[in-house]
Amino acid sequence: MDKLRGVAVVAHSGGPTQVINASLAGVFEECRKHEEITALWGARHGILGVFEERFYDLYRHDPAVISAASRAPGSALGSCRYKVQPEDHQRILETFRRHNVRYFFYTGGNDSMDTALKVSQLAAESGYELRLIGVPKTVDNDLVETDHCPGYGSAARFFACAVRDIGNDLRTLPRRVSFLEAMGRNAGWLVASAALARRRPDDPPQLIYCPERSLSEEQLVTDVEAVYRRDGYAVIAVCEAQRNEKGKPFGADHAIPDAFGWSVTGNLSHILASVINRRLKLRARSEKLGLLGRSSAACVSEVDRREAYLCGQAAVQAAIGGVTGMMVTLERDEGAEYCCTTGLTELDNVANAERLLPPEWINEAGNDIMPAFVHYAAPLAGPIDPLPRLEETLAPAAAG
Amino acid sequence: MDKLRGVAVVAHSGGPTQVINASLAGVFEECRKHEEITALWGARHGILGVFEERFYDLYRHDPAVISAASRAPGSALGSCRYKVQPEDHQRILETFRRHNVRYFFYTGGNDSMDTALKVSQLAAESGYELRLIGVPKTVDNDLVETDHCPGYGSAARFFACAVRDIGNDLRTLPRRVSFLEAMGRNAGWLVASAALARRRPDDPPQLIYCPERSLSEEQLVTDVEAVYRRDGYAVIAVCEAQRNEKGKPFGADHAIPDAFGWSVTGNLSHILASVINRRLKLRARSEKLGLLGRSSAACVSEVDRREAYLCGQAAVQAAIGGVTGMMVTLERDEGAEYCCTTGLTELDNVANAERLLPPEWINEAGNDIMPAFVHYAAPLAGPIDPLPRLEETLAPAAAG
Repeated sequence: MDKLRGVAVVAHSGGPTQVINASLAGVFEECRKHEEITALWGARHGILGVFEERFYDLYRHDPAVISAASRAPGSALGSCRYKVQPEDHQRILETFRRHNVRYFFYTGGNDSMDTALKVSQLAAESGYELRLIGVPKTVDNDLVETDHCPGYGSAARFFACAVRDIGNDLRTLPRRVSFLEAMGRNAGWLVASAALARRRPDDPPQLIYCPERSLSEEQLVTDVEAVYRRDGYAVIAVCEAQRNEKGKPFGADHAIPDAFGWSVTGNLSHILASVINRRLKLRARSEKLGLLGRSSAACVSEVDRREAYLCGQAAVQAAIGGVTGMMVTLERDEGAEYCCTTGLTELDNVANAERLLPPEWINEAGNDIMPAFVHYAAPLAGPIDPLPRLEETLAPAAAG
Repeated sequence: MDKLRGVAVVAHSGGPTQVINASLAGVFEECRKHEEITALWGARHGILGVFEERFYDLYRHDPAVISAASRAPGSALGSCRYKVQPEDHQRILETFRRHNVRYFFYTGGNDSMDTALKVSQLAAESGYELRLIGVPKTVDNDLVETDHCPGYGSAARFFACAVRDIGNDLRTLPRRVSFLEAMGRNAGWLVASAALARRRPDDPPQLIYCPERSLSEEQLVTDVEAVYRRDGYAVIAVCEAQRNEKGKPFGADHAIPDAFGWSVTGNLSHILASVINRRLKLRARSEKLGLLGRSSAACVSEVDRREAYLCGQAAVQAAIGGVTGMMVTLERDEGAEYCCTTGLTELDNVANAERLLPPEWINEAGNDIMPAFVHYAAPLAGPIDPLPRLEETLAPAAAG
């Protein structure tokens, strides 16, 4: 095979993760090993940077700077949320032709993989040799064909640690109820990671709701009341996109946005807390951890960081090897020790598909997660130390 | 002075902090040095444990367990939010008499110091020798007579790190606006710590509102619009108790709790984001970090932890020395290097008083914090590494 000489472009798409810059470092360091990649350009603000031809020449910079950036949240190149339109595919390809861009590494979720697929097809149809590889990235963990997605392990680690810490705070005060809200859309991978906060069955959270299952107000009230009666407090993990039994976001029935000027969505945990206030006369509060869930520098999974790097590296290796139109995947070995290697899948398999939690990983009542999920997710999030529970080791005083 | 032999009781009051258990360890380890303290009992769930005579005999336990617990959030003994009533003071004293409790170390904020004062006065009036010392604790940092309060430094560190991380996430995407909500009541010490996230003047957050100053919807809209026009994004730090120009919580004017069943308070950042959505037609979101602000195990200030320990230790030393009716304080040395030692102040000075941010530490426009605050708070929160900003070091490619 003749070597394909030309420029490589790397771009980020959608919301950043805690480790998206580690994938960038993987792309960068691997590209530098291959002389046929004459330059590596980072597109500023993702595909917008390609349209506007705003590129940074990464080879002209100190590798130590790229390496340092790989430990920071946010996107070092800048990202964007732009829904790529059909006419854009041609535009992207024209830019690539103009600058002899022969390698394109596109880091994103299923929307981005669809864009990558279209550009790849267009290049093939027009006889322009382009090696295009998708680098998976999403805290939602909802890409198919891969065991998991870079970004998920760290986001899961953050949420599990937050649930552990807030749960312990609430547990040590009487009569507390709180809803802890994770990001998410249709898939419950992230909210389910609250289960990693538990070491023993009675550790908080006592309830975990996943968006794969609808949640009626009646179930919520019944569940929280039962937990509160049993334990004297309640910690409930919810996903911002949780829907009610009508398939609507909670609070949508009550929306009078004109009068109040605020939308009811984006406010789930507060609405659920208000239901508990009203129905059970309990003081419930809400914590919406929001974007910290994908950006906390203090809660990064080292496994996730390493795998994000490997995915970037594998994308370049595949392209150098002549592959195009594929996305890097993570494949878990079946052994007792956790181990993942990278693989490849056709972009067509991934584009616009969505992987939900397997139904059997949610309990029958729809208010908790099964052990199979914990077995799956624990190695991705990394070790989460349990907090000491002094009350179990302390002996009553003579007076007590 | 004759040695006063008897039992010591330690209790926690109000919301836990990240370092409240470090104060417990300080009390524990110092008590063990003094043979006149025949036992150290931890009251279960604060003053409720005293009423119910639910005590744990801490001397009967492995010191290593107490030491390990000092690194966990939540209250190792359990705490409570109970407004102590006048008739309770007598009840507390009777319990102490019954068990020959001669030392009482009460860890809390200004409410608790008022309780401590009353119990101390009652003991003196009735001729019961009791050495009662307050151990300061509050993330709100609103106690008078002390340079700062144990718990504040870690909460400030958490919020500053969260603002840095979320701010960097938002900064790397175009056209983002978000409100980051800190805990707080009347004092803005905690929300002000968002300023510690900045290394350079143009680092986020661009706006910080403190509850010492009211905020009108008009000012908010004008401020956010100006920042957004200048920077293309906006990160705004707010305190959950921020009030509008009428002195009311935002959204209180619109409250129809019966129809909707939820209260409008507890929802500030969402309401402010909705104002921006409506008035500026910008997509604004909110992150309500809530209780993670006082419980994050990953974001503890080592200075804060050490000082919390010292305050517990100093309380015991004072009591052994014959002092009663006082609270431990932190006194900052005037030297160039940050250094604090402990002091004492009359409980009467502290009880029910509240320390607000000095007016001159808030800028004239009421939307930012002055450098004097940063000088004050930075050593308490500990070093906060800046995040790399690749876009400043990256050179444009030939195409760019």
